[in-house]
Amino acid sequence: MSAKEIHTNAAVFDGLIIANWSRPVFEAMHAGGLTAANCTCSVWEGFEATMANIATWQQLFADNADLIRPVHCLADIERAMAEGRVGIVLGFQNLSAIEDRIERLSLFKQLGVGVMQMAYNTQNFVGSGCYESRDGGLSDFGHDVVAEMNRLGILCDLSHVGDKTSTDVIHTSRQPVAYSHCLPAGLKKHPRNKTDEQLRFIVDYGGFVGVTLFPPFLKHGPDSTVDDYIEAIDYVIDICGEQNVGIGTDFTEGQPPEFFDWITRDKGNGRKLTEFGAIRNPEGLRTIADFPNLSAAMVRAGWSESRIERVLGGNWLRVLGEVWGDSPQSHEPTFASTTAETITG
Amino acid sequence: MSAKEIHTNAAVFDGLIIANWSRPVFEAMHAGGLTAANCTCSVWEGFEATMANIATWQQLFADNADLIRPVHCLADIERAMAEGRVGIVLGFQNLSAIEDRIERLSLFKQLGVGVMQMAYNTQNFVGSGCYESRDGGLSDFGHDVVAEMNRLGILCDLSHVGDKTSTDVIHTSRQPVAYSHCLPAGLKKHPRNKTDEQLRFIVDYGGFVGVTLFPPFLKHGPDSTVDDYIEAIDYVIDICGEQNVGIGTDFTEGQPPEFFDWITRDKGNGRKLTEFGAIRNPEGLRTIADFPNLSAAMVRAGWSESRIERVLGGNWLRVLGEVWGDSPQSHEPTFASTTAETITG
Repeated sequence: MSAKEIHTNAAVFDGLIIANWSRPVFEAMHAGGLTAANCTCSVWEGFEATMANIATWQQLFADNADLIRPVHCLADIERAMAEGRVGIVLGFQNLSAIEDRIERLSLFKQLGVGVMQMAYNTQNFVGSGCYESRDGGLSDFGHDVVAEMNRLGILCDLSHVGDKTSTDVIHTSRQPVAYSHCLPAGLKKHPRNKTDEQLRFIVDYGGFVGVTLFPPFLKHGPDSTVDDYIEAIDYVIDICGEQNVGIGTDFTEGQPPEFFDWITRDKGNGRKLTEFGAIRNPEGLRTIADFPNLSAAMVRAGWSESRIERVLGGNWLRVLGEVWGDSPQSHEPTFASTTAETITG
Repeated sequence: MSAKEIHTNAAVFDGLIIANWSRPVFEAMHAGGLTAANCTCSVWEGFEATMANIATWQQLFADNADLIRPVHCLADIERAMAEGRVGIVLGFQNLSAIEDRIERLSLFKQLGVGVMQMAYNTQNFVGSGCYESRDGGLSDFGHDVVAEMNRLGILCDLSHVGDKTSTDVIHTSRQPVAYSHCLPAGLKKHPRNKTDEQLRFIVDYGGFVGVTLFPPFLKHGPDSTVDDYIEAIDYVIDICGEQNVGIGTDFTEGQPPEFFDWITRDKGNGRKLTEFGAIRNPEGLRTIADFPNLSAAMVRAGWSESRIERVLGGNWLRVLGEVWGDSPQSHEPTFASTTAETITG
C-alpha cells in the first residue's frame, strides 16, 4: 500500500489537540484524515467555566455535524470512521474542573469526557505538576479520584504531571494510564520531557505513551521537521515497544498569543512557569491538515505497515477500549450517546 | 487583684472560636468577658460561599451591634474594649475561599479577615493538612500566597497544617506565624497535637502558640477539667515562654452533629478523616460564658498577674499588631472600618 492508502485506511487517533476550536480546525482535522482525537476542553477552568466550554461544544457538534461527532465509547470512534466524520473525545488537561467534588467526575464522564490529566504543571488537590519545585506525590484525595476514574472508565493522563505523582498514579490505577503527549528527555532535557526510566516504568505497568511534536520540547525546536518527529517516536518505541506508543501532537491550531500566556502561568494568571519561545510546528506537519505527511514520513523511515497502523491509532484504540470498558469489536456504548443520535438523526 | 478583677481588666483574646454564630453565642462571649476573638467564617467553602458567609456576618454585626463590633486592626480591638463590646476578627481555617486566585486575599483582608489557616486537614493548592498521609510541603503557589499575606498583613495560621508545610511557612514568612489553637503532643499523641520540637521551632522563628481546649485532643478527653487545660498551657509555656503563648479555645458552641461530620470529612463531603468521639468541653469551661473560670484557674495555679494578662490576651494583641502593621498604641486603622462606623454611628 502507498503511504496515502495506509493513512486513508488506518484508524488515526491524535492523543492531544488543544486548538482554538472552530469550523476551520474541524476542516483541518477532516482534511488530515483524523479518525478521532482527544480534544482539550478544560485546562485551568473550574466547574462552571468547564461546563460552559462543554455547552459550547454541544453547539459546535450541532453546527459542524457534517465534519465531527461526539465520542463516548469506542464504538463511537468506529461509527465516526464509517461515517467519514472526525470523532471528538473531550478531555481535561487538569482536574480543576471538578474543584473539590469527586462526584462531578461522573457528570463529566456522562458528558463525554473520556480523558483527564491529573494535574497541569503545578500542584492541585490531587497531586503536583511537572513545573512544581517539589512534588509531594498523589494526595489522599487524589487516591480517591483515581479510584473513581477507574470505576467510571476515565483515562488518567500524566503528561504534565510531576514525576512522584505520576509514579503514584501508575502504581495506584487499576487501569492503564498514559502520557498522552510527551517527548523523550533522552533527545532533549526539559521539565516536560520524560526520561527513559519514566517511559519504561509506565509501560512496565501496562501504560501507554503518546508522542508530541510541540516544538519547544523537540531537539531542534522550531527548526524541526517531520523526520525529527519520527526520530522521537522511534526513540520512544525502542524503549516502550511499538504496541505501547501512539501520537499525541499537542497541535495548538488557531490559538492566539494570550492563550500561550494563559497556559504558561500558574492557574492561568499567576507566576510565569516557562517560556516556550517561537512555536513553529515541524516542517511537513505545520497544521493538522498535514497529518498524511506523517504516514509518508513513517514509510520513508522504513516502518512496516503494521507498525504504522499501530502507532497511527490502533494502539490508542486498544488502550481507550480497555479503560472505557468496551473492546474495539463492541458496538454497545457504555453510555447512550443521545447527543450523537440527535446530530446524526 | 482578685481573679475576677484580673479578668475584667485584662484584654481577653480567644485565638479560635468556630461557633454556630448567633445572638446567644455573642451573649456568651460578652458574658465571658471576651475582648475579641478570631471567629471562623470559612472552612471548606469556596469563594462564593465564603463571601455569602461574610455577608451574613454584616447582618450579624448590624443586628447585634450592642454586643459585637468588627475588627480590622488593633485599634478596633481597643475600641471594642472601651465600648464594652466583643471584637470580631474574621478568620479562615483554610484557603479554599480564594480558590485559585491570589488577588482575592486582598478582598478578604479589606472585609476584615485578619487570620487565615494555610490548609485544613488535607492538601490544597498551598500545602498539606495534618491528616494528609504525606505532606509535600509548601507549593510554589503557596510561596506566592505567603508573600501576599505578608504584604497585606494577614496572620498565617498553621494549627491544622502538616508538619512539612508548617516548617516551610515558618521559614518563608517574613512575619510571625501561629498555631492559633493546638495542644502539646507531649501530653497526648494526636495528629492535631504539636510535638515539643514543633512548638520550640515556631517560637524560635518568632512565631506564636494558642492553646486549645478541644476535648478530643486533651489528655483526659471529655473528662477533662479547666485545670487540665491549665496544665496544657503550662506545658506549652515551659517550651515557648510565657510571652509567646495565648488562648485559642476552639469553642464549637451551638454546632449541630452535621457540622462535626462536615468538618471531619475531606472537603466537607469526602472520606472521613477522624472520629472525635464525645465532645464535652472541660469542666469549668463548658461554654464561652465560663471564660472567667479560666482566670480563676490561673490564679489557683499560682500564676502571676503579669503571666495571666499576657496569656489571656496581651500576647495575642502584640502578635496581631506585628502582623497587621499597627502597634497596640496606634489608633490609626490600616483600613478604614466603615462597617464599624455605620454600626456604631
